[in-house]
Order: sequence, then structure tokens, then C-alpha cells
Amino acid sequence: MSTEFKSHRQGSVKQITSHSNPIVKEIKGLVAQRKHRRESGLFVAEGLKLATDAMNAGWGVRYLAIGPEGRENKMALEAAAKAKARGALILEVNNAILSAITRRDNPQMVVGVYEQKTVPLSAVDPSHSKTWVCLDRVRDPGNLGTVIRTADAVGASGIILIGETTDPFAVEAVRATMGSLFHMPLVRCTSDAFLKFRETWPGPVVGTHLRGTKDYREVDYREPVLLMMGNEQSGLTDDLADACTDLVKIPQEGQADSLNLAVATAVMLFEVRRNYLKL
Amino acid sequence: MSTEFKSHRQGSVKQITSHSNPIVKEIKGLVAQRKHRRESGLFVAEGLKLATDAMNAGWGVRYLAIGPEGRENKMALEAAAKAKARGALILEVNNAILSAITRRDNPQMVVGVYEQKTVPLSAVDPSHSKTWVCLDRVRDPGNLGTVIRTADAVGASGIILIGETTDPFAVEAVRATMGSLFHMPLVRCTSDAFLKFRETWPGPVVGTHLRGTKDYREVDYREPVLLMMGNEQSGLTDDLADACTDLVKIPQEGQADSLNLAVATAVMLFEVRRNYLKL
Repeated sequence: MSTEFKSHRQGSVKQITSHSNPIVKEIKGLVAQRKHRRESGLFVAEGLKLATDAMNAGWGVRYLAIGPEGRENKMALEAAAKAKARGALILEVNNAILSAITRRDNPQMVVGVYEQKTVPLSAVDPSHSKTWVCLDRVRDPGNLGTVIRTADAVGASGIILIGETTDPFAVEAVRATMGSLFHMPLVRCTSDAFLKFRETWPGPVVGTHLRGTKDYREVDYREPVLLMMGNEQSGLTDDLADACTDLVKIPQEGQADSLNLAVATAVMLFEVRRNYLKL
Repeated sequence: MSTEFKSHRQGSVKQITSHSNPIVKEIKGLVAQRKHRRESGLFVAEGLKLATDAMNAGWGVRYLAIGPEGRENKMALEAAAKAKARGALILEVNNAILSAITRRDNPQMVVGVYEQKTVPLSAVDPSHSKTWVCLDRVRDPGNLGTVIRTADAVGASGIILIGETTDPFAVEAVRATMGSLFHMPLVRCTSDAFLKFRETWPGPVVGTHLRGTKDYREVDYREPVLLMMGNEQSGLTDDLADACTDLVKIPQEGQADSLNLAVATAVMLFEVRRNYLKL
């Protein structure tokens, strides 16, 4: 963690007008570079909805930058009060700084810096699980964020990221989750660790795969389920495919030769949850 | 159309090494600005797969820029030969120019400039239709492209874009279609024109809507179907919602308050096609 993050009293308010302020620079670094996110354990999420979600879900918050519109918005002020009570430094900034931080022409009124949170694989308990979405080397941050959002919407238990993946705390991924990042447990592990964990899994382990011969609607998805989805280009590795109890295909017509990963994951998740979703 | 586009013999080959070449500048303009795409009726699609799809589907091609790797690739040379036979000017360029055109660090080996193509609403014939996806004021190019890809994958009849939408010929949208743009008929119309057209539609007109009380799995999707999907922020307009025979909801658990538009469209499309998709 850089010294800037330690040099201010937390739980207080600070006005910032200069783009060269070290905290502004540090937040920009968190947006721009995975290295900065990894070293600090922090990440940036834009917008009032996400700030409210983060506060309600009890996530650690380091900074909350609030623009002129936010300082006249009841919900934004409530989020700022909660963040301050939780030890955050509240940054009163102008729209130019908000724009610069998130590289957007029309910035949100609030931008937060939160503490990354993942859970270890050992905390995934099948007896308290419905469906975990396991993503093998997912590459696109928009896909990852959208999968997290969909998993939340169907009441899945969480996400397991296998191998080298895109950063779930990248601003594009966080944006695509629409706040579901703060509600969905997130595991990161190696393929080897996952394969060991999988040996003890009592329920179906279902993967979509080119080798799949079973229609995705023909599996008995008795939970707890591990839903295995492969990399956008190459699909599941052979090791992960071999670890599945069922390899399925989603039948297609037309001339498209595949589905977008977030779309395929959604089709699978709604199939798994088909008999559980209430009217 | 700018004069540059007319000043070269079509169906021939030209080496370009300068970034300030007027054709290079014009292609960059097509990538960067909707205005240039609208005025010229052209658009840019990256990659060999899309070039092959475009050639096979018989789309008009103005330029095919081919890099050093492409000039040693059998499929790329075949696409170039077809494009040339169809009157395109083949541009032999280096990777730096390919990168500059598409604003990517790792450019594709082929970048094509094609003629935009849409079909009029009057050409949508219910008696030869399965499902048309009708998108009301869709805003995100990635969502639009992904919807086109999914519609192709389920064998839908085409896409109807209602009102002011994001440009389906923007490079991000084209990229997300993964080539399905070249296979899916695309209609653009105003809301008024659509409402008039809808009056004569003989099949179900099904929209997802906050007012929807019926579960999306409970509709009799006897084709031809119009599937109505609303804008990412505000959903369907009241006029369009009122024009539906069924307003449905996709039930959700968890804490997400909505689905991504491309995901919701996919869930609906796979439901419509549920009984048609073959094993």
C-alpha cells in the first residue's frame, strides 16, 4: 500500500480541487492498473447504487469521492455518512476530478474505493450451497461482470474463478456487475486446487463443452451444482472437462458457431434454476 | 461519399505504408464516427472470420486491408480474392496501420470495409417468420451485437431496431456479433411505423416489462413471434408495452434488481425456441 493511503485521518472529510492531489492520482492508478489494485487490495466502483450496495453489504470502504450533485442528494449523503462512520475518508471533489478518475465524460456523482474481498475455496460448503458458477480463465471483464450479475439474479451461491482470469475488481467488470459484486461470494483458485476440491463435491458437476453430447435440458440439476464454463476462445481445459459429471451442449440453429460466454452462462443458470424459480 | 472512395480503381491491389494515406484516414473515420458511417453507408469489421462470413453471405465490400500475416494465410488470401472479384480494392498494409485503424494493440490480420445493409419493415413477412427480436432504443453497442449473435444462434428471423438506437454498424457492435451481423436481417424503424406494422401481426407480441405479471415460461410462443425488449435503463415505452399481447417477467431471486439486456433477451429467445431446438 502506498504512503498516501496512510497519511490522512480516516473517518473525516477532505476537499480536493487539484488533479495532482496524491489521493486522486492513487485512485486513478487503481482504475488504470491491475498492479495497483493487487498491491493495495483496493478497487474502484462508480455510482450511488454501488456505494449503497457496498454499504448495505458491509464492505470495507477507504474513500468515497462525492461530487457537487452528490452533496445535494439525500441517498448519496447517507452513503457518505455510513462510509465515514466506517472509517472512510470522504473526498469532496468537482466533476472534472470525477471525470478524470473514471475516464468518463459524464461521471457518476459518487465514486468509491473499497477493499477487495474474496473467500477461500475451503469456505465453499456443499451442504449450504445451491449453484456455484465456475469460470475457467475468463478473459473479458464485461463477461465476468455480467456473469456475476446473472448469478445473483438467479440466487446462485457464488462464483469460483479458476486459473488466470481477468480481474473481477477492474472497473469494467465491477460496472457490469451492477452492484452484484457486493452480494456474490467470489473464490479465486488454481486449476489444481479446484480439481482437488471437486473430488469431494457431492452434486452434479456440469460443463458446457464441444465434446458434450447431452442436451443441456436433460440433466438432473439436483443442487448443489457446480456449473463449469470455459474460456471464451478455448472452452474448458481437458482436465476440467474430465472432472465433470455431465458435459452438455446448448443446441443451436442459424449460422452463429457459438454463444457469448455471459449469454451461455445465463442460459445454463436459468436451466439449473428452472424448477426453483418462483412465479 | 468522400472523393477518396472514388479515386481508385476497384478490384485492384494497392500497397499502403503511410498513416496519412487518405484511404487509411477515411477508414479510421468510419471506425471513429457514426457521422462518417451514415454519410458513406459503409462500416468496418475486423478479422478473418467476419471477412469470410461477409463474402459467403454476399455483402458488398469496398476495401479489404490485409496485413503481413494475412498475406501468408490461405483463408485470408481466399477472402481477398473473393473481395477483389467483387470489386473491392485490396489494401496491403503493415501491422502498425492495422493497429491504428482499429485502435487495438494486437490487430486482426484482415480488416474489411463493407456496405451497410438493412431491410425495410415492409419486407418482414409473418408467414415466413419465426421470431423477430424487436429492440426499443437499445443503447449499448456490445448488448446489440450480442443480441444479434444470440438471435442467429437460436435461428430467429431477424432484428427490428425501434427508435433512436446505438449504431449496429459501430465497430464494437459488429465485433460482438462475431459475424452474425452478416446473417441476420436488420430492420430500422420509428416507433410509429412499428406500431402500425404490429397491427397486422398475426402471432404473439411478447414483451418483458416491470408491469408483466405472467411468468415468461407460461406463454404459448406459437410462431411467428415478436419479442419486444426495452431500453437498458427505462424498458419498453408505454406505447410499445401497450402493443404487446403478453407482458411477462423473468422471475429473479438474489439481490440483483435486473438482468443485462443481452442476457434477458437470450433467456427469452431460448424460451421461445425451447420446443423447437433439436437434440
